[in-house]
Amino acid sequence: MRTIDWVDGAVELVDQTRLPGECVMLRLHTVAELVDAIQRLAVRGAPALGVAGALGVVLAGGDPAEIAGLRAARPTAVNLAWGVDQAVAHLAEGHEAVLAAALRVRDDDIAACLAMGERGADLLEGDRLRIMTVCNTGGLAAVERGTALGVVQTLHERGRLAEVLALETRPLLQGARLTTWELARMGAPHRLIADSAGPYLLAKGEVDAVLIGADRIAANGDTANKIGSYALALGAERAGVPFIVVAPETTIDPATPSGEHIEIEDRGDEEIVTVHGVRVAPEGTRALNPAFDVTPHDLITAIVTDKRVIRP
Amino acid sequence: MRTIDWVDGAVELVDQTRLPGECVMLRLHTVAELVDAIQRLAVRGAPALGVAGALGVVLAGGDPAEIAGLRAARPTAVNLAWGVDQAVAHLAEGHEAVLAAALRVRDDDIAACLAMGERGADLLEGDRLRIMTVCNTGGLAAVERGTALGVVQTLHERGRLAEVLALETRPLLQGARLTTWELARMGAPHRLIADSAGPYLLAKGEVDAVLIGADRIAANGDTANKIGSYALALGAERAGVPFIVVAPETTIDPATPSGEHIEIEDRGDEEIVTVHGVRVAPEGTRALNPAFDVTPHDLITAIVTDKRVIRP
Repeated sequence: MRTIDWVDGAVELVDQTRLPGECVMLRLHTVAELVDAIQRLAVRGAPALGVAGALGVVLAGGDPAEIAGLRAARPTAVNLAWGVDQAVAHLAEGHEAVLAAALRVRDDDIAACLAMGERGADLLEGDRLRIMTVCNTGGLAAVERGTALGVVQTLHERGRLAEVLALETRPLLQGARLTTWELARMGAPHRLIADSAGPYLLAKGEVDAVLIGADRIAANGDTANKIGSYALALGAERAGVPFIVVAPETTIDPATPSGEHIEIEDRGDEEIVTVHGVRVAPEGTRALNPAFDVTPHDLITAIVTDKRVIRP
Repeated sequence: MRTIDWVDGAVELVDQTRLPGECVMLRLHTVAELVDAIQRLAVRGAPALGVAGALGVVLAGGDPAEIAGLRAARPTAVNLAWGVDQAVAHLAEGHEAVLAAALRVRDDDIAACLAMGERGADLLEGDRLRIMTVCNTGGLAAVERGTALGVVQTLHERGRLAEVLALETRPLLQGARLTTWELARMGAPHRLIADSAGPYLLAKGEVDAVLIGADRIAANGDTANKIGSYALALGAERAGVPFIVVAPETTIDPATPSGEHIEIEDRGDEEIVTVHGVRVAPEGTRALNPAFDVTPHDLITAIVTDKRVIRP
């Protein structure tokens, strides 16, 4: 199953707002429908949004207003605009060229994830690996397989995976909702843990490697990723466990010299004072809600991309 | 307000299952009512349970069956049995002696928390302190003031508290539900954070000291406390921030040489696959749920008790 694809003249994608309860495929024929799906987070994850942007240009049939609306559907998602631009570059060559460019974005992502999975699995030693991971970095964030969870899938296919310990990933619980669902689908043994248990389970010797994705990698290797990644890096260092970042080469930003130059978004109080829509804290409680953290390069054993292995 | 007290011939206690929505005082006249309150977690926290046990013997009026039932109401709560035993030791001397012994348990806890608060506040340097803490270690776990949060209260009374960053404390969210409520009552500035954000906010220089409680302290200073404490200790060490344990002298267990001898309870799948009663993970998802972790003594700056400051 592909998270997003072009099937018989329409965009098909998994409605991630329905997971893990049910797996519903949406079939979208218009840019308006696609923009709606993007805005209500039915599709998420940088690579998947890139593909959505490129395929959306095909749906737009060259209409400049529709293309502009699509490109701005989620302003912080750099990959969405990037995907739109990949297809727009071929507008002058006609429909078939635009479609071919959009399918190339899709196919390049599939190939990149496959390459990362194989390179990551080759890098790790051992036959019965216990992997810890945070957030959702699987096929649901891409077209297929994903980044860190793509390595897990390759390990599982090679018979080298013992178990995955998945952090639930507060505040939005992508680990509890999405990663568990993907691991169950691939038949990989896994258990869910509270985020705060990660470093302790590393200290107890329960983990052979930590695998995470990345939102942005600075030129010196400092890596911004979902909040909680840094705590796992500290735990892995003290336990002597490899801490490995898996991300496409495009995640590396040479214009950002180090982690201190990466701005971290605060997503506001609501996600913290509520859990899954239920209020838990007293009325009036304020929160501090950094969505990402930065792991310094000295805590990173290796960065695995679709092109190479970097040891910061 | 006292979390638990003896008022006009009955036990009065705050029903913690109603917090933070409403603050309801229960008035209990029988051992059966008290046992029910203990079993449904209307009263919790080791010191508070000790006082409940002692006062319950007064309610029992010497009835051996009632006393035995009370003593066994929550088998893992060592302090409950200890409190019962303090009062039972005076049964032969008559009702007044039993009551006096029970009130002594209450008053000793109040005095111990006050002493910890002052000693902890004296230990810390600085006039505008930003404190990070986990779980609930306030008056709700004791009779008044509590342990780590008792130090916060003393700092606040002395005008030396800038802000508290409280970890929400998955899985049971004692930080989100109870610590925020206590801080709001004492008028102390505070913000709630996801557990996984703690180490990162330490790295960002947002915290002057980490204060935690303790469930058990081994002879060498290794400290068992709520899951997530170890991650904060790692973050504090790397950031050069003091990491301080606040607990009564009775928490130190000389019979346990080091942390590796402390058994950590796994509280089962349900608390992890659900949040605040709402299911978040797919059906069939398994979990690993260590309720506590162990912080090695080399990561602990100081242990503050009601009697002394220990530097492990």
